[in-house]
Order: sequence, then structure tokens, then C-alpha cells
Amino acid sequence: MERIQLAEDLSFSRLIHGLWRLADWNYSNTDTLNLIEHALERGITTFDHADIYGSYTCETLFGHALKEKPSLRSQMELVTKCGIVLPSKQRPEHKTHHYNTTKAHILLSIENSLRNLQTDYIDLLLIHRPDPFMDPQETADAFVQLQKEGKVRHFGVSNFKDHQWRMLESYLPFPLVTNQLELSAYNLENFEDGTLNLCLEKQIPPMAWSPLAGGSIFSGTDEKAIRLRKTLEKTGREIGAEGMDEVLYAWLLRHPARIMPIIGSGKKDRIDAAIRALQWTLNHDQWFEILQSSMGHDVP
Amino acid sequence: MERIQLAEDLSFSRLIHGLWRLADWNYSNTDTLNLIEHALERGITTFDHADIYGSYTCETLFGHALKEKPSLRSQMELVTKCGIVLPSKQRPEHKTHHYNTTKAHILLSIENSLRNLQTDYIDLLLIHRPDPFMDPQETADAFVQLQKEGKVRHFGVSNFKDHQWRMLESYLPFPLVTNQLELSAYNLENFEDGTLNLCLEKQIPPMAWSPLAGGSIFSGTDEKAIRLRKTLEKTGREIGAEGMDEVLYAWLLRHPARIMPIIGSGKKDRIDAAIRALQWTLNHDQWFEILQSSMGHDVP
Amino acid sequence: MERIQLAEDLSFSRLIHGLWRLADWNYSNTDTLNLIEHALERGITTFDHADIYGSYTCETLFGHALKEKPSLRSQMELVTKCGIVLPSKQRPEHKTHHYNTTKAHILLSIENSLRNLQTDYIDLLLIHRPDPFMDPQETADAFVQLQKEGKVRHFGVSNFKDHQWRMLESYLPFPLVTNQLELSAYNLENFEDGTLNLCLEKQIPPMAWSPLAGGSIFSGTDEKAIRLRKTLEKTGREIGAEGMDEVLYAWLLRHPARIMPIIGSGKKDRIDAAIRALQWTLNHDQWFEILQSSMGHDVP
Repeated sequence: MERIQLAEDLSFSRLIHGLWRLADWNYSNTDTLNLIEHALERGITTFDHADIYGSYTCETLFGHALKEKPSLRSQMELVTKCGIVLPSKQRPEHKTHHYNTTKAHILLSIENSLRNLQTDYIDLLLIHRPDPFMDPQETADAFVQLQKEGKVRHFGVSNFKDHQWRMLESYLPFPLVTNQLELSAYNLENFEDGTLNLCLEKQIPPMAWSPLAGGSIFSGTDEKAIRLRKTLEKTGREIGAEGMDEVLYAWLLRHPARIMPIIGSGKKDRIDAAIRALQWTLNHDQWFEILQSSMGHDVP
Repeated sequence: MERIQLAEDLSFSRLIHGLWRLADWNYSNTDTLNLIEHALERGITTFDHADIYGSYTCETLFGHALKEKPSLRSQMELVTKCGIVLPSKQRPEHKTHHYNTTKAHILLSIENSLRNLQTDYIDLLLIHRPDPFMDPQETADAFVQLQKEGKVRHFGVSNFKDHQWRMLESYLPFPLVTNQLELSAYNLENFEDGTLNLCLEKQIPPMAWSPLAGGSIFSGTDEKAIRLRKTLEKTGREIGAEGMDEVLYAWLLRHPARIMPIIGSGKKDRIDAAIRALQWTLNHDQWFEILQSSMGHDVP
Repeated sequence: MERIQLAEDLSFSRLIHGLWRLADWNYSNTDTLNLIEHALERGITTFDHADIYGSYTCETLFGHALKEKPSLRSQMELVTKCGIVLPSKQRPEHKTHHYNTTKAHILLSIENSLRNLQTDYIDLLLIHRPDPFMDPQETADAFVQLQKEGKVRHFGVSNFKDHQWRMLESYLPFPLVTNQLELSAYNLENFEDGTLNLCLEKQIPPMAWSPLAGGSIFSGTDEKAIRLRKTLEKTGREIGAEGMDEVLYAWLLRHPARIMPIIGSGKKDRIDAAIRALQWTLNHDQWFEILQSSMGHDVP
């Protein structure tokens, strides 16, 4: 599978597997291990986590599976996130839902993630959400210390608008390597408001969360979903895709920003569908027909 | 007429003539040639085209006229645009309305424009619209090759917001020389959202399309048009202008960004009215009265 | 009181006193002098003016008081603003409400401010509002001349969005030292749209006008005011504050951008309340509870 270079010493698989809903799948350790190996065998080597996924449980479930076959660690890249504080049974000390990007919180969060994921290092740490209360010097100090200690190799952000990216980066002695964004044919905000353009300007490949728009396209009854479905089905027939999800992945993969879609499914056949999308190359007419179905009007 | 320097070796006349609607005027070659000479004699030496104007016919009509008197070419600057793909009788291979800013499309488009305009070189090529599917490296490669081949002297954009400008420029080995924007007392968007401020920051003089708001001010029945008309008439009486169009041009010309309005009319008297506007200098009260009529409220 | 460094040779008190409504207080010279000395004795050494405050009368009232005890001048920093032109009995030559940031207007305005404030120099001059008609070269020329003549020590802006800041600063031979913004728990616009983030990026401490939202929180009957009041009262009880105003100041003071709130009251007890706020350190839960009360929903 194509690799995307994020730094001199870090590359990701073009498709990434996301563990956001691992806790919902009710998988045994063996099931999870099978899923990981299924992905790895097909070249998907990058796995996306966050401390809070599954109310602070998904990292642990993944770590348990990884412990069964520790040799897999060196074949994969692990991404995790921190910065959101969530009230949860697992964290009784949390009172309100808020953000915390202080040095102390980031360091503590990484200790938890390393232990839960049963690993010595994180390949990429992301600040989960832009924090209106961020002290960028604190965040930068945490990043520098974590890198020095070998606990985290590289750093990025998620859901950051351009001013938030520029602000944080101005405090860092090294560049941020990615921005994980909501990017799909259904959700065009980051295509339109300059967020994706900053990635192109900085030559930073973005990760795409909810590349299938969380299913809203498949079952949605709103006009946008209905319009998009019709175009995706037409395009699918034209290129010979088996399902709409392939077309949605292909639409993102065709964009010049080198978008890395995150596959959020625990089903092997959905992972395989995403992999099939790598072979489709939409032409300009097809790409814009999908865009315009989503916008509900032609480009000007 | 005042000249505006866009690059060391490129200056435009302060007023530009636009051929957007040339195909609608039903002009003979002689009529068109007369219009061109009328403009040139009065110092308007810059002519604004796009491949798609008149559904891909305006460049050709202009070229036919220019062929009658090829010596005029060296007295004028030719601007054209590419990047929009329009379904048209003239381009039966075009299926959907979309954008294409790939190297192949830009190179092909310039070959067509050179042939249609009956010229060896374009003074300024603009990307017509920001393309959400742009691969900036492809666009940059096309620009570099066209400049090396002597087919296009300078490059700019049209309708680009700040993030789109910064993104494309970061891939170029030379600066973009202008942004052609919708700018008029009726349409303030680019005055307010940072687009014009980027021109000032980069010290790039913008071109203004629809400086008269496409006639909406003269005949519009919306409150904004009614308010503006009243103020324009009052200001016109104060300065001694013959018509509202003079005041609208004068309002743009007075702005410090060195805006170059594009006159879209094929009538000599409307061109002459624009030229008369060069003599009016609105004072601060007059400039803000017009602004505030358009906004519908005072500045804060 | 904590000092905030704005430049190598300029620091402000963390809390600033604002004279916006001085003309409304009907203070005698002695009253005003008393107020000034009350602030100075408590470490509030920075006083915020604008030419137009009190319809061009507040600077004069302050100057009259200062004349009673000229030795105070060297113990304080004087901020004033220019750029708004207001129709007023005091300025019969003004026809319409507009902006003027030309060199001539700025120089004239400073002559008036120096005379009215009975001082030889202004510590900080701010452009009061972003001027859509600004010629940044004129503004820069005025700044350079005023600094050379020793009439103004440093320069900044007020209410500037990021593109307005970047544009003006690109014309200046020295950095702008602050942006005076509307910042309060009730008015979050500048927290959200990148304006405050530019301050952090440029490491420029902002001044906050209307830190108490002009009273709308205390008496407002809109849902936002009601929600905020409830949270502010709860937080006040938790930290032991005497009133909501202390909590509002503490919320701003806790933000990492080193916000300098402007106290707009002429009452000594309200000044003392602001000073008490310096001792409170809201925790993350408290800071976000106030933010979320204002937004009306949780952070994502």
C-alpha cells in the first residue's frame, strides 16, 4: 500500500484504521488481534486512537490484544490524542467536560496511553481539539519533553483551524506533522474555510475522520444525503465500485492534499472495501459531480 | 492615463477594458477594432479576457479584429483566464461545469487563447476561480513552463480568498501580480473579509470586476440599491459628475489599494464616463457616506 | 500589582483604568484627582483614553485634574486613540461619522490629545477601529514621525481582526504592541475567530474593553445572561468572591494571553473589586463552566 511521508523518519499507510468504536464491537482479544493482523497483512499499518475513546477504554482493549503478540508493535504506527477531559466511570475525578492542554495533563495522559497501549512509545500524539484556554508554551514544553524522553516521536493536532495551527506552531521548535480533520464528500467545511488549504500550504498531509460521514450518507433522508447517494451510485456504476463507501474513499484519495482516510469499521469486509478504493481514479467530471451534489449547486 | 506597475516589466492602464460580453454586442470586426482604438487613444491599453467568455467565443472575436491591425498588439496588454470548464457547443467534449487547474489543462487552454487572440504571448494569465481540487504543484509547473516558453509573461488569480492566495503562492518561484475581485460600492464582501487587505499587505494592485455591480444599483428595487442610488446622486451633484457610474468608479479609484476597475461596456460614451471619473477625488465624508449607504448602517 | 511588558521600555499595570465615561460622572477636578490617586496607590498606573470619549471632552477633564498635580504624570502610562471622526458640538467641522487614518488627521489628533491631556508625550497610541479606507503607508508615516518627535512612544490598534493587523504591521518599521479588544465571558467573538490567537502567536498582550460586558450580564434578561449569572454566582461562592464582577475579571485574568482588563468605573469600590480579582485563580472546571454557560452548550 502507498505510504505517506509525514516526517523524515515517519511514514503512515495511506489508509489508517481507527479504533474509536472498538469498545462497541464486543470483540475478544483474539477478535481484536485478528482485525489488527487483517489490516497489517493488507498494508494498513497505522492505527488511530485517543485517550477518551470508549470512555477511556479503547486503548486498553487494543493493548490487551497487542500483548498477545508484541512483535506486531514494530510493524505498526500508533497515533493517540489527548486534551479532552471527559466525566467517566473510569475517571471519577473528572467533574465537567472540558479541555486541558497543560504540561501536567499532557504528561499524565501520555503515561496512561503508554500503559494502556502496552507500548514504550507513541508514533504520533495529537491535541484532540483546539483549546480556547490553551497556554501554547505549556503545550510546547510538554511536546519537547516527551520527544526528549523518547515517549512520543512526532506531534500534530486535530480539528484545528488555520489560526489555531499557526498559533501553536509558533511556540514549537519542530513542525506539526498532521491535522486530523473531518473530511468527507458530505462535510465540506474544511475544504471551504481554508483549513485544508493550510495543509497544502504547509505540505502537511491531513488525516480524515468520518470519511463516510458516520453513515449519514447511506441512510440520511435529508436532501443533501439523497442527492449525494444518487451521484455516488452513478459514479460507482461508472468506475465499477461495489459500494458507495468505495466511491467516498476514492473521492478523498483523489484530492491532491494526500488525505489519509481513517476507516472506523471493525468489519473486515468494510476494510477491504476501503482498500479496493485505492484502485479507482475519479476523473474531473466525477469528482466535481460529487462535490456539487453535496453543495446542492454548481461551482460559480 | 495613470499607469499601475504590477511587476518590474509590466504596467497596466488604471482603467481596463473588459471583453466579457463582446459576443453579445453583435459587433463587426470594424466595430470591435473601432472600440479597441477608441480605448487605446484614451490611454486604456489593458484588455481583460477569459477563455470561457461568450461561451469560448470572445477571444476569437477580439483576435479577428486585432488581425486587421496587428500593429496594435504592441500597444496593449492582454489578460486572459483559464481554469473553468464549461459545457458548450464550442467544446462538445465538456460534460459538466467544473474547474481544471492541472498542468495539461492550463497548457492546452493557453494554446487555444494564443490562437484565438491571434497573438504570440499573453501579458497576464489568471486562474479564473479558486479550485477546491487544485494540485498547486501542477498549477505552478504549468506557470513556470509557460513563462519559460515566453507564452505568458506574468501570472495572477481571480476571486481568491486569502488562504487560497497564500496556498498557491507558496508553490511558485515568483509572486502572483494581481487578484481580480468583485469590488464595488454595492458588493463589499472583499472589502470586509480580508481579501482586499491581503492585496494591501502584499502590495498587489487588484483588478475590479463588476465595478458598477452589473447594473443592480441603477435599476435595483432592493433597499440597498435605493439607498445607494440616493447617495450616489447626491455625491454626483456635489462633485459635478454626469452620472452615477462616474461616482461608482471614483469611489473605487479613491481607495488606497490602487484598484483597477474593468469597464465592461462596449459603448464609447460609457468608456468616456469611466475616464471622466479619474478626475474626481471624493473626500472622506463622501467616501464613507457611500460605504454606509451600502452597509445600511454607520461604521461602529 | 503585576506588570505586563509591552515593549523593552514600556510596561502596563495588569489592570488598566478606562476614562471612557469620565464626562458622565460629573466629577470635580478634585474628584477626578482623587480617583487617579486611588488607582495609582493601588498599582493601577495605566489610564486608557480616546480623543472621542465624552464627545471629545474626557481627555480635557483628565488633563485639568492632572494639572493640579503634574508630578503624577511620571507615575502613569497614558493610552489614547484616534481615527474616528464624530460629529460633535466640540468639532463643528465634522459632517458625518467616519474614520480617518491619514497622516494629517493622526498628527492633528495627537496635537489635540497632548494639549487636552496636558502632557508632552503619549505612552501608547491606538488606531481606534479598523478603517476600510486606510492607506497603511500614511498611517505608518504618521507613526514614524510621532515616534521620532517623541510625542508618542509606542503604537497599537483596537478592534483589529487578524488580516487588518497583519496588513498594517507589514508597513511599519516596528511591531504594534497591543490590540485593544472586546473580551468578556459574555462576548466570545475574539476568542473564537482567531483574533486572540493572533495575539498569542505574536506574543502581544491584549487590552480588554467591556470586560464586564457593559453590565449586560448583571441585568440582562436574555438566556445567555441568565445562564452566565447562575454560573458566575456559583463560581463566586466557590472561590469566595464578593461579586460577579470579580469572577468576570478573574476569568479574563486566568487566560494565558495575559489579558489586561480595562476597568471602566469611576467608583472606588468597583476598582477595588477588580483588584481583589487578581488573587483568584479559577481552575479548569470553573473556567470552562463559565465558557460553556456563555456558549449555551458544551465544547465538542
